[in-house]
Amino acid sequence: MSEVTMEQLVSLCKRRGFVYQSSEIYGGLSGAWDYGPMGVELKNRIRDYWWKEMTQIQEHIVGLDAAIMMHPKVWEASGHVENFTDPLVDCRQCKSRFRADQIDLEAACPVCGTKGSFTEPRDFNLMFSTHLGSVKDSGSVVYLRPETAQGIFVNFKNVLQTSRVKIPFGIAQVGKAFRNEVTTKSFIFRTCEFEQLEMQFFVKPGEDERWFEYWKQARIDYYRKLGIRSDRLKFKEHGSDELAHYAKAAFDIEYHFPMGWQELEGIHSRTDFDLGRHQEYSGKDLTYLDPETRERYVPYVVETSAGLTRTVLMVLSDAYEEEQLEGGDSRTVMRFHPAVAPITVGIFPLVKKDGLADLAKTIERRLREKYQVFYDQSGAIGRRYRRMDEVGTPFGITVDYQTKEDDTVTLRFRDSMEQRRVSIHQLEEIIDGEIRSYRRES
Amino acid sequence: MSEVTMEQLVSLCKRRGFVYQSSEIYGGLSGAWDYGPMGVELKNRIRDYWWKEMTQIQEHIVGLDAAIMMHPKVWEASGHVENFTDPLVDCRQCKSRFRADQIDLEAACPVCGTKGSFTEPRDFNLMFSTHLGSVKDSGSVVYLRPETAQGIFVNFKNVLQTSRVKIPFGIAQVGKAFRNEVTTKSFIFRTCEFEQLEMQFFVKPGEDERWFEYWKQARIDYYRKLGIRSDRLKFKEHGSDELAHYAKAAFDIEYHFPMGWQELEGIHSRTDFDLGRHQEYSGKDLTYLDPETRERYVPYVVETSAGLTRTVLMVLSDAYEEEQLEGGDSRTVMRFHPAVAPITVGIFPLVKKDGLADLAKTIERRLREKYQVFYDQSGAIGRRYRRMDEVGTPFGITVDYQTKEDDTVTLRFRDSMEQRRVSIHQLEEIIDGEIRSYRRES
Repeated sequence: MSEVTMEQLVSLCKRRGFVYQSSEIYGGLSGAWDYGPMGVELKNRIRDYWWKEMTQIQEHIVGLDAAIMMHPKVWEASGHVENFTDPLVDCRQCKSRFRADQIDLEAACPVCGTKGSFTEPRDFNLMFSTHLGSVKDSGSVVYLRPETAQGIFVNFKNVLQTSRVKIPFGIAQVGKAFRNEVTTKSFIFRTCEFEQLEMQFFVKPGEDERWFEYWKQARIDYYRKLGIRSDRLKFKEHGSDELAHYAKAAFDIEYHFPMGWQELEGIHSRTDFDLGRHQEYSGKDLTYLDPETRERYVPYVVETSAGLTRTVLMVLSDAYEEEQLEGGDSRTVMRFHPAVAPITVGIFPLVKKDGLADLAKTIERRLREKYQVFYDQSGAIGRRYRRMDEVGTPFGITVDYQTKEDDTVTLRFRDSMEQRRVSIHQLEEIIDGEIRSYRRES
Repeated sequence: MSEVTMEQLVSLCKRRGFVYQSSEIYGGLSGAWDYGPMGVELKNRIRDYWWKEMTQIQEHIVGLDAAIMMHPKVWEASGHVENFTDPLVDCRQCKSRFRADQIDLEAACPVCGTKGSFTEPRDFNLMFSTHLGSVKDSGSVVYLRPETAQGIFVNFKNVLQTSRVKIPFGIAQVGKAFRNEVTTKSFIFRTCEFEQLEMQFFVKPGEDERWFEYWKQARIDYYRKLGIRSDRLKFKEHGSDELAHYAKAAFDIEYHFPMGWQELEGIHSRTDFDLGRHQEYSGKDLTYLDPETRERYVPYVVETSAGLTRTVLMVLSDAYEEEQLEGGDSRTVMRFHPAVAPITVGIFPLVKKDGLADLAKTIERRLREKYQVFYDQSGAIGRRYRRMDEVGTPFGITVDYQTKEDDTVTLRFRDSMEQRRVSIHQLEEIIDGEIRSYRRES
């Protein structure tokens, strides 16, 4: 398969307003990115698609939105204060810093070339810390959460008591997390500030293996439903020597990014580790009383943990195509699933004059109630189509002279470039039907 | 008008899963709150309602999502490093800290009672700072943004160059901001971590006064459209002695919260202050070239800046009603606009048996594709209705024996408690129509 390169992606993202370097006018901030007009719509729609799939259509999953700043004890209980570290070494000569596990400590410093200049490795915690309140004493240190999961665990009892949920049930959350990564890399793939799409599913001990299998399948099905190419998705199992301290079993869903196979989402069997630790550190009872069997237990947890910003990179990579057209022409087309495309409908009057622009504007205003719309009246119609292809707009409506006579327009489909004459009164019905039944042809 | 008290609100919010104290099992974190299953749905819908009103239906406004961590120079240029401070004093005796402008420096300490114990006032910056990278030197200090606006200003040129916008146009953004407030207060009204709904509208100098008036009117109309009681909304003009250093004119939209009239949103005429400062500090050209007149200028800015978390508190306050019913009964009802209610439809089989539960489940699955749905099959039907009233669910569907015969259900309306017999095939059409045409009766 012909694949997009990272350079092509970064270039398109800047050129078409998907992703900009953060604080670019000040030279940028290492590994931080801003989402432009196209990027924010794409990211929001992917977020909403996940939220709908993981809460709205699920009877047994509810949502939550916990604060980024939490009580510092949370991170003692979770093990992050103690364990969430990277081993780092400094070059004594040039003061550059490296991850000890990514460098040959006997070799020369890759920056200044000095040999034998590295310090002993020291553990460096990846959590960002700041001070809450105006006094800088140790009591006021708070961390920016390095994951959203703990916000769910510490609210387990609150949700249980106020939401009429019964085990098995899940709590889903979308939100920012922060990790002080020494090496940010691969565009928006690994950044210090990122967004997670997490769901913790609470089950009866002994039923966790069944639910682990269920969520593994459900999550890879989800990506296929989103239109992602099957041959670029695979599972990777964590061997028993690779498992995190809290995990009984773990599978990654990997995607074949421009820089190779990388983790997109993790499905983790976390047992009762987290609730057990919070019970111990808080002194609060976090058990569940089964209303039917009268058994009392600390639930086990099966977690699905995906990166939103990482999913955006995947969707961008997967959608990108350079296509040779008949007649020697070519186009760049982003084949986004219509449900997540930044703009759903482009509207173009063939010419501005003779009332065609007014007619197009009337249709535009009506469709804006329902869709993200882009109105464009300037330049050759072919160029206007190409611009829409490049931001992945699935539907284009052209208003021409015939529209004035019989209330029909040309509806153009991004993928096939087919043009169909349809009534303006049926536009929403046709577009909604196409979104529902979309299957990517590749 | 009979108003809800803060105690009633906080109690309902906890009891029904709208808002929990953050890290509650660890004793909480001062002024931090988590949004439970009802709260996150309410907050998300208000966010989406704003986003639709301010971007989707607006031809001349695009979205943006900038990182929370930005280059530190941004905050020098904006004036925040220098000016974003509170004057604080300490009690020498008990070490308590107060805002100098909120306390009588000659009086006794309100905590320990000692007289003449206060230090001289010192300026304390409200920005949270942390260290990016693993080295704690001054070069690596970054701030958590205290407002979202600057992310828009520093991306002005990027958006201009990649989005085919022409002045006048706006850039809208939703996101978190952080302020190290010494006094957090009034539940979710003033917190250290909060969310903003901001839009910066770029105009030609000289046209700013007209656009200022336009957005003032548009923004108060927006709250009325959201169903907020008119007699609890008012404008408050900032006198020339109250204006911020960047502002030429400013109006607040105030709401009558349980604790009194307070700012909900500010409409600010910021002139070319921000773009001018960033041009100066970055050395980059941030002017705009008018494509028709060939004039070149630094645009003026009219800003609409609302708090999302504050809007949630307003919507909760405004919706709350305790109602006396006929027969001596009473109910608590949250009269949310159906477009922002956490749950849109409740579904209840009259009894579980005789296939009524299965029938209700079938309807539930269908409606979940479109709405947030709550299915409840236990307890007396009257109690199930009351629970839905208390979380503000506008529509209730009851499946009974007649449903099996003629495919009709009872559709109950939250506000009027009217019950109407309707066909199950018309449910979406009726519900959508009611959402579109909703007017609050009070």
